[in-house]
Amino acid sequence: MLKQLNWTITILFYCTAAIAEEGMWTLDNFPKAAVNERYGVEITDDWLDRARLATTRLEGGCSGSFASENGLLVTNHHCITTCLTQLSTAEQDLEAEGFYAKEPDQEQRCEAEQVSVLVDTQEITAEVLAATNDKQESEANKARKATLTRLEKECEQQGDEQGQKIYCESVNLYNGGQYFMYAYKRYEDVRLVFVPEADVAAFGGDPDNFNFPRWSLDMAFLRVYENDQPAHTPDFLPWRADGADADELVMVSGHPGSTDRLLTVAQLQHVRQMAMPNWLLRYSELRGRMIQLATQSEENHRIVRIPLQGIENSLKVFRNQQLVLMDDEFMATKKEQEDILRSKDAAPFENIEAALDIFDTFYMRYLFIERTAGLQGDLFNYARTLVRAAMEREKPDAQRLRAYVEPALPGMKQRMIAANPIYPVLERQRLAFSLDKMRELLGPDDPFVKQVLGSKSPDELAAQLVDGTQLADPDYRELHWVGGIKAIETSEDPMIQLALAIDAEGRALRKRYEDEVEAVIRHAEEQIAKLRFETGGTSSYPDATFTLRVTYGSVKGWLERGEQITPFTTTQRLYDRATGSAPFRLPGSWVDARGKLNMESRFNQSFSTDITGGNSGSPAIDQHGNFVGLIFDGNIHSIGGSYWFDESMNRSVAVHPQVMLEALEKIYGAERLLDEITLAE
Amino acid sequence: MLKQLNWTITILFYCTAAIAEEGMWTLDNFPKAAVNERYGVEITDDWLDRARLATTRLEGGCSGSFASENGLLVTNHHCITTCLTQLSTAEQDLEAEGFYAKEPDQEQRCEAEQVSVLVDTQEITAEVLAATNDKQESEANKARKATLTRLEKECEQQGDEQGQKIYCESVNLYNGGQYFMYAYKRYEDVRLVFVPEADVAAFGGDPDNFNFPRWSLDMAFLRVYENDQPAHTPDFLPWRADGADADELVMVSGHPGSTDRLLTVAQLQHVRQMAMPNWLLRYSELRGRMIQLATQSEENHRIVRIPLQGIENSLKVFRNQQLVLMDDEFMATKKEQEDILRSKDAAPFENIEAALDIFDTFYMRYLFIERTAGLQGDLFNYARTLVRAAMEREKPDAQRLRAYVEPALPGMKQRMIAANPIYPVLERQRLAFSLDKMRELLGPDDPFVKQVLGSKSPDELAAQLVDGTQLADPDYRELHWVGGIKAIETSEDPMIQLALAIDAEGRALRKRYEDEVEAVIRHAEEQIAKLRFETGGTSSYPDATFTLRVTYGSVKGWLERGEQITPFTTTQRLYDRATGSAPFRLPGSWVDARGKLNMESRFNQSFSTDITGGNSGSPAIDQHGNFVGLIFDGNIHSIGGSYWFDESMNRSVAVHPQVMLEALEKIYGAERLLDEITLAE
Repeated sequence: MLKQLNWTITILFYCTAAIAEEGMWTLDNFPKAAVNERYGVEITDDWLDRARLATTRLEGGCSGSFASENGLLVTNHHCITTCLTQLSTAEQDLEAEGFYAKEPDQEQRCEAEQVSVLVDTQEITAEVLAATNDKQESEANKARKATLTRLEKECEQQGDEQGQKIYCESVNLYNGGQYFMYAYKRYEDVRLVFVPEADVAAFGGDPDNFNFPRWSLDMAFLRVYENDQPAHTPDFLPWRADGADADELVMVSGHPGSTDRLLTVAQLQHVRQMAMPNWLLRYSELRGRMIQLATQSEENHRIVRIPLQGIENSLKVFRNQQLVLMDDEFMATKKEQEDILRSKDAAPFENIEAALDIFDTFYMRYLFIERTAGLQGDLFNYARTLVRAAMEREKPDAQRLRAYVEPALPGMKQRMIAANPIYPVLERQRLAFSLDKMRELLGPDDPFVKQVLGSKSPDELAAQLVDGTQLADPDYRELHWVGGIKAIETSEDPMIQLALAIDAEGRALRKRYEDEVEAVIRHAEEQIAKLRFETGGTSSYPDATFTLRVTYGSVKGWLERGEQITPFTTTQRLYDRATGSAPFRLPGSWVDARGKLNMESRFNQSFSTDITGGNSGSPAIDQHGNFVGLIFDGNIHSIGGSYWFDESMNRSVAVHPQVMLEALEKIYGAERLLDEITLAE
Repeated sequence: MLKQLNWTITILFYCTAAIAEEGMWTLDNFPKAAVNERYGVEITDDWLDRARLATTRLEGGCSGSFASENGLLVTNHHCITTCLTQLSTAEQDLEAEGFYAKEPDQEQRCEAEQVSVLVDTQEITAEVLAATNDKQESEANKARKATLTRLEKECEQQGDEQGQKIYCESVNLYNGGQYFMYAYKRYEDVRLVFVPEADVAAFGGDPDNFNFPRWSLDMAFLRVYENDQPAHTPDFLPWRADGADADELVMVSGHPGSTDRLLTVAQLQHVRQMAMPNWLLRYSELRGRMIQLATQSEENHRIVRIPLQGIENSLKVFRNQQLVLMDDEFMATKKEQEDILRSKDAAPFENIEAALDIFDTFYMRYLFIERTAGLQGDLFNYARTLVRAAMEREKPDAQRLRAYVEPALPGMKQRMIAANPIYPVLERQRLAFSLDKMRELLGPDDPFVKQVLGSKSPDELAAQLVDGTQLADPDYRELHWVGGIKAIETSEDPMIQLALAIDAEGRALRKRYEDEVEAVIRHAEEQIAKLRFETGGTSSYPDATFTLRVTYGSVKGWLERGEQITPFTTTQRLYDRATGSAPFRLPGSWVDARGKLNMESRFNQSFSTDITGGNSGSPAIDQHGNFVGLIFDGNIHSIGGSYWFDESMNRSVAVHPQVMLEALEKIYGAERLLDEITLAE
């Protein structure tokens, strides 16, 4: 699965020159000539415009595409687990059992889901540089943020004046080389239309995750609404029922989350030595705790399932990323490339090294305290957000933390008061575990650890806080959101009191991070970006930033240890591999329908396109603008794509339209959906 | 805790030249001159002889020393957990509650415990080289093993002829540079005399493990018996009640398990890329599973405690070892050192690289199948040993696997039929977990995985095997041991049937490993050893091999990030740090005795000696041959000692005799013990 990665390893950077088919291209710089040269196909601006307007961003960290003019949107099953959890009850587990709204009025609202479409982009590099010019690093850092906040606000006001509600987000491309303002149309009423059972959507589970050949029907249909009516979405993608042929050109349009392809060597070492070992061991242990928790009851099994999937997915990603970072040849290549730039100006590289040396001395405290790695769980997260939001709302926008500026608040409030099932057993485990890790990594004698734990064990404190707080209640949260700073300061809720008590220490660490680390690195990166532009020209693409990109490649397998992997799988082997035991268990609907299905239908497929986490749910599009596949994963080699693109091995993995249409018809009888999906001529 | 490490990362090597105080010296090559030069102290052969005869090896992987002439032996609490588990019941948990045999006849037999004292060593290099000379690598490998087996047998027969029962073990020193025959007197009747409660023996638990300052009373007293009477052990160490002074010379005598200080760069990379990531993630997840299992009931908590301690200890070791292996400067230094030897002859280094490249292609299958990483637990282990022993006993000694040669069988049988509590809940967890990891790492389509799992999930198969086997019964095991190959082949026990069914695949992998990897590496290592001897002369020590070594240093703290750590802790801060919650909870006996204790008593201490896993329980000895401390751990920097010795930071951690004697007197009223321990004059 390709959802977005953890913040700790998303230090962004950019790439100098495109080699071969690699590249997550912004639409204004799509390499039409290269595509034409290689495939003899001309990609027009119209093609790109339609791809842009048909492609959606799911704010939870995925992509999707419109499949009809009435707001029907196709994405992955694994992209809407939050929605499925929120709509599920102890009696009806939508994630496991699937869902189909036979009638339009059965479509169910996903309260926390938001869907965006990119409608405009404007370069703002000049304004940003003007604001930071000649300022000392930490002052420049503040000015940069304040300027971005101001420009975002102005952009939204401009939209308002034109009678168009838009959401504006500044974007740093080429790592400080360019700043852009991206304007989105945003849909806040998103409803569930169809999703298959988890057992077929994630057939093969963690063992098969990031592997290919593969047999996962990882699809889901949502619909965006406006004014309680299906939204009008004229720019949708017709489906090509038989998909694309082997070796045919395909493009993937979507929102890749982040890549780190040109981190400096020092930054890569920091990830390898500090971030990775910590997350790998932490998630492995948490995985173990969750698996064992799941065995304790049916109910535990259900509530653990989705968070466990996320953990296992991250683990596989981190594990394979770390193998790249530990590869001496990879590191030597990075060093060679860097030495070329260092020979022009070594100072920014040295400044990054010095800043990271400082960061290393308080990295763990920053991580555990300010980034709350020591206080995990939805309940503490509510408390922290309520406390921070209340405090920040007391300040003018320009002085707030960027996450809490005025334009961000409506979305934050929507998420805060959305009905979200809270499972005390899971909350206790997550909180106790993170407290335990904090004590382990900061040490039992750390003053913050002593302040939080006192004489209690992590288990005791977690139980006390989870049992004592009322934050599981959406009304209680709304009361505190609306009540602002007074409600927070007088609250007797133990979770809120804790968040308040530790806020100052967190802010002190954040200030240190921003002034001594972030400010230095941002400035150095801008300098390095300039060096790179001087060397590499403009024939490059920026690292992924969860903004819209198009990548091209073809329907293609690869050579794995001497064995040729073909790019298509078919239904027959799904049944051959089904054992009856999870994760190789098929749902009853599939067991029953076996006789009705065409065993030669194409099930999953692989492309040589360049994607990463965030591309989940992306459409694969042919040269005529038709939908030919639903991206849901990459092969195991694609994980190294965080740091470099290996054209010979890196593959995207997608669901094939053949099996999607066949399953909708023969297994799910989803006629209403089939009628709505327009097939390509 | 310092117990021995996992086999996977104990590829042995040796060191060229001693720098500063480093070195785990064999007694025939102890650097008397260097000690004299640095400390003005002459270490005599008499001193070394007494150290040798007073120092014991616990075959479970620890050291110890005699504290009286009547076989009284002091070691660590954490070294005798197997014994404590075997003697505990659901009603009486000796590990948690402690034990004291007030009267001699209350001393309780530790059935699986064996204690050895080194009585003789003989060099056999010439015989081994003569047997392998001019043979092709895989033939040489077989001849080497057969020769060692033959010489061990001859050594024991020689002992028999002289009316002395000895146990002979060949040792490879300087990585093929020297072969020795080590002869041990072995005590097989070992009884428990005294052990304190776990809460004070392991005060601080995992958070404090490998840290200093420290407050752990990690001690235990055993007694070796002969003919049902306390053994006569005239060479014991008198105790110096106030220990050694700061900066005073101390020696540590014991059996360090393994170090890897001069692995070739390729070998280090193999450990870093293949072994470490696997064990780190595996143990982290298992840790999580065990911690959660422990929360399910009081009984689970009890049975999980000791295996969990072992897992957490290994994790801390691996984690810090891996940080060294990922350190570019460390690797660059290794490469520089290696390049000097490569310039003389690169071939053996290249041969090792080629062998490891081959190994990488089947490393995981070898690990999971032949090394049974996919089939963990005591029950499967019994089955595997019964199957292998039965098959091997059909062959003449010279053709057997080395673990199953005639001299090894009595000890193996003793362990096989010892009453050993089997906890089905833990067995199921370990087996299900290891099957799950096997499917994850080999993949669900691996033929072996399919053979073992069939259509079952790991949980289902584990439950079926654990519930179906009768191997928890010692009599049943003895029946199958005695019954030999016929009993095995006709057994209807599902665990034995499984072990039998998969034996051939394991042997095939072993053969491949031995012929294509081990044989090549052994030969290359012998060549490298020769290169090193030519360069470094004899002023060196071999890597640790769980054989007797003496290291010297002084009572010494270190400088930690600008802060001076003093080498002694005192009782006062033990009480200051006690919170009442595990692992910072003191047992009732200590809470009650607080008023009676001297708060200034020295509790733990740090030395600059060079130790590693296996040294647990080692005596620290002053220049006069007195016991001045009980080694139980190293500081966090000592973990890097697997790969290099950092004199400025690497410290051993020991219990101080002051607190040991005071606790025996004032807390435990152990008068019989106090009377027996001879104090130094």
